[in-house]
Amino acid sequence: MKPTITIEYCPKCGWMMRAAYMAQELLTTFTDDIYGVTLHPSEINGRYTISVNDEVLFDRKKEGRFPEIKELKQLIRDKVNPEKSLGHSDKK
Amino acid sequence: MKPTITIEYCPKCGWMMRAAYMAQELLTTFTDDIYGVTLHPSEINGRYTISVNDEVLFDRKKEGRFPEIKELKQLIRDKVNPEKSLGHSDKK
Repeated sequence: MKPTITIEYCPKCGWMMRAAYMAQELLTTFTDDIYGVTLHPSEINGRYTISVNDEVLFDRKKEGRFPEIKELKQLIRDKVNPEKSLGHSDKK
Repeated sequence: MKPTITIEYCPKCGWMMRAAYMAQELLTTFTDDIYGVTLHPSEINGRYTISVNDEVLFDRKKEGRFPEIKELKQLIRDKVNPEKSLGHSDKK
């Protein structure tokens, strides 16, 4: 079974569209590497986390910011397909 | 555990954005009624199905068309929260 990415977001904070945007970026890049992306409205205010299966890779509260897309793709890539090149998203 | 909606779509057909749009419609309407929406790129060409847990509620191949949003919300509502009013989406 391919891994599932979950984006848990605070709907009251207005973060649904941000979460949906990130989901589409990940689905475009990792189409064949993942089972899918789950958008999960959180019951916890201010929550914005991104997980692979049950492992949290990014937590807004801990980082004090949202992830950049390039950074997020690198985090996910390292978990789901470490050999995969991300093209220009790999350059620092 | 609240139900999970899955939208399985054919990525080669260019249906990711359509699936993401429908996911956002459902997340907006059913924020408190569902665990979330999973966007699942299909390995089957031409696939576009919408399921609640493992029950398929709409299958593009069977219907010969994509669902309308109003219709889709009614199908989902009947499964996840039959008492819920959909406002103007309930009028025929």
